[in-house]
Amino acid sequence: MSASSAIKRIGVLTGGGDCPGINAVIRAVVKTGLLDYGFEAVGILDGYEGLVKDRMVELGYEDVSGILTVGGTILGTSNTAHPFEYVEHGGQAEDARDVSDQCVTNFEKAGLDVLFCIGGDGTLSIAHQLAAKGLPVVGVPKTIDNDICGTDVTFGFDTAVQIVTEAIDRLHTTAMSHHRAMVIETMGRYAGWLALVGGMAGGGDIILIPEIPHHMEVVCEAVGGRSRRGKRFSLIVVAEGVKRPEGGYVLRGRVEESHEKIRLGGIGVWLANEVQERTGVVSRAVVLGHVQRGGSPTAFDRVLATRLGREAVVQAAEGRFDVMVGVQGRDIVPVPLADVAQKQRLVTADSQVLHAARSVGTCFGDE
Amino acid sequence: MSASSAIKRIGVLTGGGDCPGINAVIRAVVKTGLLDYGFEAVGILDGYEGLVKDRMVELGYEDVSGILTVGGTILGTSNTAHPFEYVEHGGQAEDARDVSDQCVTNFEKAGLDVLFCIGGDGTLSIAHQLAAKGLPVVGVPKTIDNDICGTDVTFGFDTAVQIVTEAIDRLHTTAMSHHRAMVIETMGRYAGWLALVGGMAGGGDIILIPEIPHHMEVVCEAVGGRSRRGKRFSLIVVAEGVKRPEGGYVLRGRVEESHEKIRLGGIGVWLANEVQERTGVVSRAVVLGHVQRGGSPTAFDRVLATRLGREAVVQAAEGRFDVMVGVQGRDIVPVPLADVAQKQRLVTADSQVLHAARSVGTCFGDE
Amino acid sequence: MSASSAIKRIGVLTGGGDCPGINAVIRAVVKTGLLDYGFEAVGILDGYEGLVKDRMVELGYEDVSGILTVGGTILGTSNTAHPFEYVEHGGQAEDARDVSDQCVTNFEKAGLDVLFCIGGDGTLSIAHQLAAKGLPVVGVPKTIDNDICGTDVTFGFDTAVQIVTEAIDRLHTTAMSHHRAMVIETMGRYAGWLALVGGMAGGGDIILIPEIPHHMEVVCEAVGGRSRRGKRFSLIVVAEGVKRPEGGYVLRGRVEESHEKIRLGGIGVWLANEVQERTGVVSRAVVLGHVQRGGSPTAFDRVLATRLGREAVVQAAEGRFDVMVGVQGRDIVPVPLADVAQKQRLVTADSQVLHAARSVGTCFGDE
Amino acid sequence: MSASSAIKRIGVLTGGGDCPGINAVIRAVVKTGLLDYGFEAVGILDGYEGLVKDRMVELGYEDVSGILTVGGTILGTSNTAHPFEYVEHGGQAEDARDVSDQCVTNFEKAGLDVLFCIGGDGTLSIAHQLAAKGLPVVGVPKTIDNDICGTDVTFGFDTAVQIVTEAIDRLHTTAMSHHRAMVIETMGRYAGWLALVGGMAGGGDIILIPEIPHHMEVVCEAVGGRSRRGKRFSLIVVAEGVKRPEGGYVLRGRVEESHEKIRLGGIGVWLANEVQERTGVVSRAVVLGHVQRGGSPTAFDRVLATRLGREAVVQAAEGRFDVMVGVQGRDIVPVPLADVAQKQRLVTADSQVLHAARSVGTCFGDE
Repeated sequence: MSASSAIKRIGVLTGGGDCPGINAVIRAVVKTGLLDYGFEAVGILDGYEGLVKDRMVELGYEDVSGILTVGGTILGTSNTAHPFEYVEHGGQAEDARDVSDQCVTNFEKAGLDVLFCIGGDGTLSIAHQLAAKGLPVVGVPKTIDNDICGTDVTFGFDTAVQIVTEAIDRLHTTAMSHHRAMVIETMGRYAGWLALVGGMAGGGDIILIPEIPHHMEVVCEAVGGRSRRGKRFSLIVVAEGVKRPEGGYVLRGRVEESHEKIRLGGIGVWLANEVQERTGVVSRAVVLGHVQRGGSPTAFDRVLATRLGREAVVQAAEGRFDVMVGVQGRDIVPVPLADVAQKQRLVTADSQVLHAARSVGTCFGDE
Repeated sequence: MSASSAIKRIGVLTGGGDCPGINAVIRAVVKTGLLDYGFEAVGILDGYEGLVKDRMVELGYEDVSGILTVGGTILGTSNTAHPFEYVEHGGQAEDARDVSDQCVTNFEKAGLDVLFCIGGDGTLSIAHQLAAKGLPVVGVPKTIDNDICGTDVTFGFDTAVQIVTEAIDRLHTTAMSHHRAMVIETMGRYAGWLALVGGMAGGGDIILIPEIPHHMEVVCEAVGGRSRRGKRFSLIVVAEGVKRPEGGYVLRGRVEESHEKIRLGGIGVWLANEVQERTGVVSRAVVLGHVQRGGSPTAFDRVLATRLGREAVVQAAEGRFDVMVGVQGRDIVPVPLADVAQKQRLVTADSQVLHAARSVGTCFGDE
Repeated sequence: MSASSAIKRIGVLTGGGDCPGINAVIRAVVKTGLLDYGFEAVGILDGYEGLVKDRMVELGYEDVSGILTVGGTILGTSNTAHPFEYVEHGGQAEDARDVSDQCVTNFEKAGLDVLFCIGGDGTLSIAHQLAAKGLPVVGVPKTIDNDICGTDVTFGFDTAVQIVTEAIDRLHTTAMSHHRAMVIETMGRYAGWLALVGGMAGGGDIILIPEIPHHMEVVCEAVGGRSRRGKRFSLIVVAEGVKRPEGGYVLRGRVEESHEKIRLGGIGVWLANEVQERTGVVSRAVVLGHVQRGGSPTAFDRVLATRLGREAVVQAAEGRFDVMVGVQGRDIVPVPLADVAQKQRLVTADSQVLHAARSVGTCFGDE
Repeated sequence: MSASSAIKRIGVLTGGGDCPGINAVIRAVVKTGLLDYGFEAVGILDGYEGLVKDRMVELGYEDVSGILTVGGTILGTSNTAHPFEYVEHGGQAEDARDVSDQCVTNFEKAGLDVLFCIGGDGTLSIAHQLAAKGLPVVGVPKTIDNDICGTDVTFGFDTAVQIVTEAIDRLHTTAMSHHRAMVIETMGRYAGWLALVGGMAGGGDIILIPEIPHHMEVVCEAVGGRSRRGKRFSLIVVAEGVKRPEGGYVLRGRVEESHEKIRLGGIGVWLANEVQERTGVVSRAVVLGHVQRGGSPTAFDRVLATRLGREAVVQAAEGRFDVMVGVQGRDIVPVPLADVAQKQRLVTADSQVLHAARSVGTCFGDE
């Protein structure tokens, strides 16, 4: 492992939204560095904010002991800090400036030889930009949306799917006892993986995702058809990013900056109302929200996160940078960040998962 | 057991909203009747609707086998059918009429000797009215809100509390990683038990319930005070029935009859917005909704429901009617429906549970 | 609260086996002491061992923050340290000596004014003996066996019941698919509460507990009778303390000190074999073991533990010592340790829970 | 889809041990056949036993509705029925005879055009033999052991891993509070996947699997080393198939045919004893047993099972027989049964999962 001989000290940061398994990645990066290569490890606090503001902590074996099972990130995160368009806390968007040199300076001042960036599309795109400035970065993809290119699956997705599934399981009996349509709104602004896979696992009768335009006539016919066949209830799973016919959509109960921008009630509530009006079947909506992205990861995600963290260190030790680690089949492989940044892996018409959902009778509102 | 000698055939119906454990009660009523007393059992479908419309099914041992663990009710339920103010399906409220004689006729036609009514305040009040007309009724209290008088606890409550608690556990790590205030809105229009007990179990920092008027200054001071002590996150649990200061409140994403009546976003979303505006701490709301009242019951609720079902049959067999069975200490005892109907058991200032919550530092927004 | 004016500094220790909710009690004791009364708090490590050896740590607000949901005890525990019959680590039983004076000395040296002892029958009995030597002790009952006198229920029991129930739920489908008898062995050496309540919640067909002598003929007739009625499987729940007919019983896969003493396979394995031999129904045993007493507590146990911890401090503050706090109905009340020590609350023939189990058809092997 | 034109009626059977997700496969096979191809479906009861004895039921849409989430198999199964070495119920092994012609006759009599065999290595090997006799079979691999060749993963494995992980999570706090070594024995006679992956997800300190010979000195040094570094507990995960040094091993508390053959206590209990004797650290064993293979499947397994069932029907419809469906990367593909039968996919030294486990410090007892 001659390439690694140059590495003595590694830094790790976590960016973007919460996702079950981040701590498991941090643990694997630090332990692998320490045990396999003798690296020292440094945690950069609150995502890129800590790199800009030089807020870092040493990470020893004990610091990452016991965090495998814990949700969240011990390093904190930030959704907003962007080294190339940085806005001071409380500042205005028009005052954004490029502080990436400051990041490079702080990286060097801390004596770091590699920067591990655990994050979603935004975090990885910035990592790629930093690589262009000469920082030796390795990315680890992180999103419950499962929509990052170059990897079959992302950690956190399985946990989110499991949470969606358990919620549908619970709503199933209520729908059945009350002869209702229950609408379950999942996360997923652009990609429908969570609604699709969670909906399948929960036995959703109708699943609406952003990738497949739906017609309310088809949706309502599916509800009505079930009713006529003696199934007096329907489970409708909808991704938050699904658009209402008139256009415009609304996100996860988020509190926007100004009162005017608060659009209360998203696609789920709208859909429940629409179905009730059109079919006469009493309908209720549940918006799952942030419970989908927090808490202890499933076994699957713990192991995946551990493997990703380990392979990320291996890439660095072997001198491969400006890459992220991705799952491809049984293996975890390096993927150039250039192939990943600012792209999205959406549900496509030829997906076997989609075929399977259709084959067991799921309606997608499109035919 | 001479009193029971007159009973040969029992009927059971389930009314009101979903609640984990209803099937366990049905199973216990039918099995106890069958095995201990040799009664035949009849299930009345969709609550009082089935009594009005004479829709009933025979219930044998096999019909209630395997339903202990299953959420919902195998008999179906109705929130709306009211024998004394009955509205035909699709009819108008002003056309409501008294069809209780029809209920008595159908009861007699089916050869029933007792009517077991499993339901909440509404269902039990009707049962009491039917008793006044001579029907031998025994009630079993059912609500996740835990607010029925005459019983220390109701089945379904423990399951709902557990679901709230698991949601808070998940949101905890997200709040911590992101330095946020997370608002969790639970069910509870009038009674705060679910928010109080679930909030305590989840370690909520601030709990707002309908019984305790709150001041936003106190709530925001609690959030800010935590922030100043280095706790960069807060968990706020709020019952849906908590009123905004300006009055008016909105329920669980319910789809009202007309578009005008859709009040999108309840107290949770309002509160998250208000906290963010006032404290600058980024805030998000999660409205738990119907997942709180569906699905498989906890072990506690399965056993409680089984015990209640059994004791209800014992009351009937011993000739005690116009009562419900209630938990008082270790025992299940008969409670006159007259003492129960149209009352509510709310959280009171001298509740030990409330004291305990305050003692571990929970803020209720009131001081 | 004049009585509490004398108290400035409190000590807390945890003794005996693991039990979900201990940390929740510690947290409530420390927070209540700190916030309501301004007490300082000290944690005594590893049960009475820490009192004998003077191993203690200061406990501030931060030390007990975040432990509500965590299983185990942050103070450590010891099953063996006994101040009145103390054996040095590695010593022989015959060298046991009374070091209780040392405990008193260390208590005084640490400037303590109260000693909170969280533990089972053993720990509480010692607490009572220490009270006789003048130490102001308050006990908090702790056992998953739910067999302590003076309290309707103990924290940890609900979690253990839930774990047993989830295991039975899983085994149910296997038994059904394979037409088998599955034997589930729960903890419970003397008291059958866990097997009884967990067995009821899981829908066990046959439940054997130490309090009710069973006949193998009755057990096998129950298995065979089900088989003849077309139910090709049986779920048998048995407490570890149930005796084989020939006498002698074996505990939870425990590794005894010498090879000779290893008695491999307890009542569960024996019973599965016996049922298979006698009925021809293929039988398998599962011994649940220590998973029943570890891990995160249920919501119920978290709240109960919090309430108990708070009320224990209230007792001390009001000058009541040589008592434990016990649940009686809706309230938590002080109970003299003299009434509790060296007694056990067993399942009795008049228990409503037992009646309910029989009424839904559970066989106890006795008739 | 011309190839499918010849198919009108399909049969499905389930063989071998229980495994979460079997019902999900049955549902997908029947629904896909019905909805996509208009096939009629027949369920063959109790594995090959039903084919030998001609015990079959029609399976319509309603029969497979609602079984997605339910553990076990609605068709029943048999571990023992072998068409080529058939022993009558209650018969002796030496009387085994070839009744495979009878299977062919019954297959034809029922008017079947395809036979779907859901099962493990044994079931699939028989399917391959039946194919040699001209039966058009398609296999679906099923095992919680994850050791079938030709597929990256099998349904049921993820659920089993999750159960192992939750058990370790619970035992973790007990081990920590009591300063103990806890030994967790998982299933896995030949393949260590379940112990390896479950152990990783639970943060096991030491993992012993059949593929990696261990030395007790190394195991005990790992326990002792942790103790010296202040970690006063160890979690040891061991697959049931791991051999004691003296040779011979014992399976999952199984009740063997004769008393002589009952070997009570398997590798887990032995190991706990050995560790305690050698290191002085108090040790306890938990044998997880059949809970690992029963109950409701995880979301992952429900989706995988659904996909496998659907693709199995596609293979048949496209005229591909004597194959099973296997997961390879993101896709499910046909794999010749000849390449699968009587082989096993074991953990190999170059496995990335194994590397990752070592990198985070897991001891495998081998170096």
